[in-house]
Amino acid sequence: MEFIKPYAALVEQELRSLPFPDVPETLYAPQRYILENGGKRVRPVLALMSCGICGKKPERALPAALAVELLHNFTLIHDDIMDQADSRRSMPSVHIKWDVPSAILSGDGLFVQSMLQLQRLSDDIDHKKVSGIFLEGINRVCEGQALDMEFENRQNVSADEYLSMIGGKTAALISASLVMGGLCGNADDRQIEHLDTIGTSLGLAFQIQDDWLDVTADPEKFGKRRAGDIYEGKKTFLMLNALENCSDTERSRIQVLLSEPVLTSEMVDEVLSLYKSCGAIDAAYNEFINYYRRAEEALHAFEQSPYKQDLLQLINYLKNREI
Amino acid sequence: MEFIKPYAALVEQELRSLPFPDVPETLYAPQRYILENGGKRVRPVLALMSCGICGKKPERALPAALAVELLHNFTLIHDDIMDQADSRRSMPSVHIKWDVPSAILSGDGLFVQSMLQLQRLSDDIDHKKVSGIFLEGINRVCEGQALDMEFENRQNVSADEYLSMIGGKTAALISASLVMGGLCGNADDRQIEHLDTIGTSLGLAFQIQDDWLDVTADPEKFGKRRAGDIYEGKKTFLMLNALENCSDTERSRIQVLLSEPVLTSEMVDEVLSLYKSCGAIDAAYNEFINYYRRAEEALHAFEQSPYKQDLLQLINYLKNREI
Repeated sequence: MEFIKPYAALVEQELRSLPFPDVPETLYAPQRYILENGGKRVRPVLALMSCGICGKKPERALPAALAVELLHNFTLIHDDIMDQADSRRSMPSVHIKWDVPSAILSGDGLFVQSMLQLQRLSDDIDHKKVSGIFLEGINRVCEGQALDMEFENRQNVSADEYLSMIGGKTAALISASLVMGGLCGNADDRQIEHLDTIGTSLGLAFQIQDDWLDVTADPEKFGKRRAGDIYEGKKTFLMLNALENCSDTERSRIQVLLSEPVLTSEMVDEVLSLYKSCGAIDAAYNEFINYYRRAEEALHAFEQSPYKQDLLQLINYLKNREI
Repeated sequence: MEFIKPYAALVEQELRSLPFPDVPETLYAPQRYILENGGKRVRPVLALMSCGICGKKPERALPAALAVELLHNFTLIHDDIMDQADSRRSMPSVHIKWDVPSAILSGDGLFVQSMLQLQRLSDDIDHKKVSGIFLEGINRVCEGQALDMEFENRQNVSADEYLSMIGGKTAALISASLVMGGLCGNADDRQIEHLDTIGTSLGLAFQIQDDWLDVTADPEKFGKRRAGDIYEGKKTFLMLNALENCSDTERSRIQVLLSEPVLTSEMVDEVLSLYKSCGAIDAAYNEFINYYRRAEEALHAFEQSPYKQDLLQLINYLKNREI
């Protein structure tokens, strides 16, 4: 991903220059910790590219880019508490390294820092509009997380409901990144609509592809065990699509297998072959390829520019990723 | 408090008209619950009065007033998790009625709703400035909460550090309420400075008075047992002032008593008489009276108006409260 390096470098430089005070340590040390723990910085890079695509220098969108990256890291801290995830990027989660109260509080503080970044927007950018788009996006992320938690205790989740959940939890912030970047680049309403389509489509594509990679990727490259989602009983696009489209006999068998407290590798293989026979694996592939295509088509509405080329490359890279 | 009723009624009406969707329930039901659970709505009332004092109709500050009230309730949800407080205003806390994940998430969502209120500010109000003041205030609240948590595990907290903690945890949002109300009322920089002084002083006065009432109030009226803070070993202005100003013998005795895992009423009486003999009770009284006076003096800089009279009455009411 050579082509994203200049954007990512800008983001890293800004992140390093953030003035986190030393005290109170309970508030700021976890904020520094999660930000230093890396990540691919995809969202802020999208904000910068989007600003460039709309005809302004990407740097103009740096405050918006930082805002989405800080916001993303705030959601990671709180999600890890809610999901009882003990590690992230091979490091202990904030609530494990510190404790739950410190993780709640430092997450809240990171949300504040995220919003404060927008104070640095150039005066000729509509601050109210940018923060409105951002906040609506964050609220959709919260709705998505709520649905995700509710789905865990529900039997009858449909594939459509799943799409609406990831539309909030994953896609809303990616869309907000592109739209906010666009607003920094003086995008008009039509362009904003296209940027929203690109972001939403990319977010949905990425998540469905994640579900698909879980059962199709080379475990060596993927870095996770094959079909980990099935072992964990996670409701994925594949599971929900399979349950909707298989025969009654197949459905009963899948449900029996998935209701096992601990699945053997033989059981997982049987689930996998049922997913395959009822077309769920192909359906997931077609679904995410379709969303990537939708993103590319919406991008065609913009004039040629190196920034547009970079985003096309990024979409292509994501579409063909094996991990 | 007849004089605050018209302001509080405006706030209640706006709160009732907030469009909380029915789903996802995990996100919105706790938000409705905490807001319906009442409270005195002091912060939004202060925002409305402040706007009036600066020469505009209080209604102009309603979005800012709602924002501070929603923000306050967000802090209550998260603080109750952090402080492991099982009830609030005689009702189960959100994380008890639901669970910790729902409480974290619905708190986050309430923070979003709070910031979204500012989208409704009239177009001739500087949205960027109002949200900047608000966010800086919220960050100080986070810093105050962090200090409060750190103080629990520290022996050597000074009375000055305590003031700096409550300056964040309690006073920052009260100051932000008045300053945001002032900005909605087109206040100039000098007026903003006075409003900040009023808010900070009121916040500090209120908290120190709380500490003082804990040991001096009529338990029947106060609704809590006398010297509850001493039983709980809470670091209050009285404790820290006493430890700083007593003799070495008295200090050792206080420390021995407060280090008891469970205090008897005789022990608490002895602590109380030590607080008294080293002047801590009088010092707390003088301190909060002094802060109320500072608030009144700053208020004198404003022209006469019914709104100014109402705020003076409110300060007077708070100063003389017995609960």
